[in-house]
Amino acid sequence: MTPGGVWVLGVDSGGSGFRVALAAVDAPARPAGGAAPGPSARPVAARAFGTPVPTGPGGIDAGWLVERLVPAARELLDRAGAGGRPGAVAVGAAGMAGLGDRLRAVLPGALRDALGVRRLALASDAVTAYAGALGRAPGTVVAAGTGLVALGTDLVRWRRADGWGHLLGDCGGGAWIGRAGLEAALRAHDGRRGGSPALLARAEALFGPVAGLPGRLYPRPDRAAVLASFAPEVARHAADDPVAAGVLARAARHIAEAAAAVHPAGGAGDVALTGGLFRLGDPLLVPLREELARQLPGARTVSAAGDPLSGALAIAAALAADAPALPREPGLLDTYGN
Amino acid sequence: MTPGGVWVLGVDSGGSGFRVALAAVDAPARPAGGAAPGPSARPVAARAFGTPVPTGPGGIDAGWLVERLVPAARELLDRAGAGGRPGAVAVGAAGMAGLGDRLRAVLPGALRDALGVRRLALASDAVTAYAGALGRAPGTVVAAGTGLVALGTDLVRWRRADGWGHLLGDCGGGAWIGRAGLEAALRAHDGRRGGSPALLARAEALFGPVAGLPGRLYPRPDRAAVLASFAPEVARHAADDPVAAGVLARAARHIAEAAAAVHPAGGAGDVALTGGLFRLGDPLLVPLREELARQLPGARTVSAAGDPLSGALAIAAALAADAPALPREPGLLDTYGN
Repeated sequence: MTPGGVWVLGVDSGGSGFRVALAAVDAPARPAGGAAPGPSARPVAARAFGTPVPTGPGGIDAGWLVERLVPAARELLDRAGAGGRPGAVAVGAAGMAGLGDRLRAVLPGALRDALGVRRLALASDAVTAYAGALGRAPGTVVAAGTGLVALGTDLVRWRRADGWGHLLGDCGGGAWIGRAGLEAALRAHDGRRGGSPALLARAEALFGPVAGLPGRLYPRPDRAAVLASFAPEVARHAADDPVAAGVLARAARHIAEAAAAVHPAGGAGDVALTGGLFRLGDPLLVPLREELARQLPGARTVSAAGDPLSGALAIAAALAADAPALPREPGLLDTYGN
Repeated sequence: MTPGGVWVLGVDSGGSGFRVALAAVDAPARPAGGAAPGPSARPVAARAFGTPVPTGPGGIDAGWLVERLVPAARELLDRAGAGGRPGAVAVGAAGMAGLGDRLRAVLPGALRDALGVRRLALASDAVTAYAGALGRAPGTVVAAGTGLVALGTDLVRWRRADGWGHLLGDCGGGAWIGRAGLEAALRAHDGRRGGSPALLARAEALFGPVAGLPGRLYPRPDRAAVLASFAPEVARHAADDPVAAGVLARAARHIAEAAAAVHPAGGAGDVALTGGLFRLGDPLLVPLREELARQLPGARTVSAAGDPLSGALAIAAALAADAPALPREPGLLDTYGN
């Protein structure tokens, strides 16, 4: 990177905090007669914040984010000797579609005034997950942790499935699996059909006597995360416990249904799995690969190439270089600037 | 009722308010050679409060209830010309097992001091529902509205199944059915398998565009009630929509599983259905009767003889008359006094 080269910033904001990274943009060599692969973003420094951006009645708190993002960005630029202004910034945030109005209203002006940023992308965290996982190729990304969303594109338009939260959907995600496991524990406690004595024992070891579980779970604001904390127990028992294995088989079916609903018509493109859920490993991945083979027989299942923060950097790099980008769509991927 | 006869008070406290009733106790004629049927409580007056008793970190707010219950009881006794003190009081409350510590600590002394009450029963609302539905006969009651709990007894001990709330269970209850219906609506919106276009249309008519549904549902403290408000739509579409019918078939299976888990060994006793859920009518009741016939072939399904308030009065009347009562069990049915 020569002085005067192009630098970009990426932000990944989620339920457990947010991260900012600085990358140098490397212009690719254009292969003779081939399509330009697009610029690549080479991360050089990053900073993580352990507090999530607050969300209030007005949505994601844009002022709170700006107060922390601007000094962090200056520090990263200074440390790298980048000088000047970044060529582009991309912010990926959970809840961007429904809760991002203040970000969209405030960030373009605030980052132009404070950092001289002229090109900005505001993306749903599902879009940054997509960009990190598959870059600018058509296909489908399933991003799953506590929640679960599937996002697919043929590079013309986006299709989204699920991501409705732990009460309305997120079927097959961490909270869904943990909730189903706790239901199986309580069924065993009650003597109802479908109970798992093994999961009951684990639930009592982790949360105390189950009679107190409702009183401990319902008042908490992080109910979905508490439910998801039980998902690894379900996975751990799947080999020996048919009830636990059944929960994961149903989760796999739901996940594949979400992927199948958004995959590009004709089956072009890979299906990438990204996010903490897939660290459950084979107890989930083996039935999931079977379900994907059944529901999307033409698609290959791959691991994500990079994470959502690297996806934000890739989006910023494409924006800075005027390179072909993923489809713009309000609430999913909004761009600002010349 | 002659002056100087026995009067009892019953209280039914739930999520939408609480009610207080006064009844005269009629001693039954003992049939020659037969078992005493127990005293009967003949309601003479009642008062309803539209505000639910507050629940805080310390549980159900006993002081708040006493402040309202004592004047209401005095007024009912005065109006009926009952004079003196009630022979017994029975309070049935939702959450009594887990949230009733302050009621158990405060009410016996407070009602003795204010009203001269010497005999008091504090019961789970499931127990007053049982007493109202089946009196003092062995069997099973399924009490269901937004939530769902099954309670059975052989008159020696109680067995309880489900009642774990909308995240952990209440399988087949109003919130469960409504939630499943909304999931089917969102599946149709996404193009996932298992979707119901009819339920999607109803969800959008009731709640607006579904993209805004998570933002409208999750911040509300009465999430379970909002979910349950969609259950009648599921029932209304069951005749024409196989997805809606499937939701109710699964609900029926869950409800029968809860009943089967608690029904007295050997199958003695009826199964009574009580609570607002069963006003969904045949779309739920037809598959439920089939499931009960399958899972509890020896038991007869009956309508509840009375409601939880009449159950509270029956418990108070038995207490006042030293008559045989339903089994005492801490958190389910606690009694105080001589």
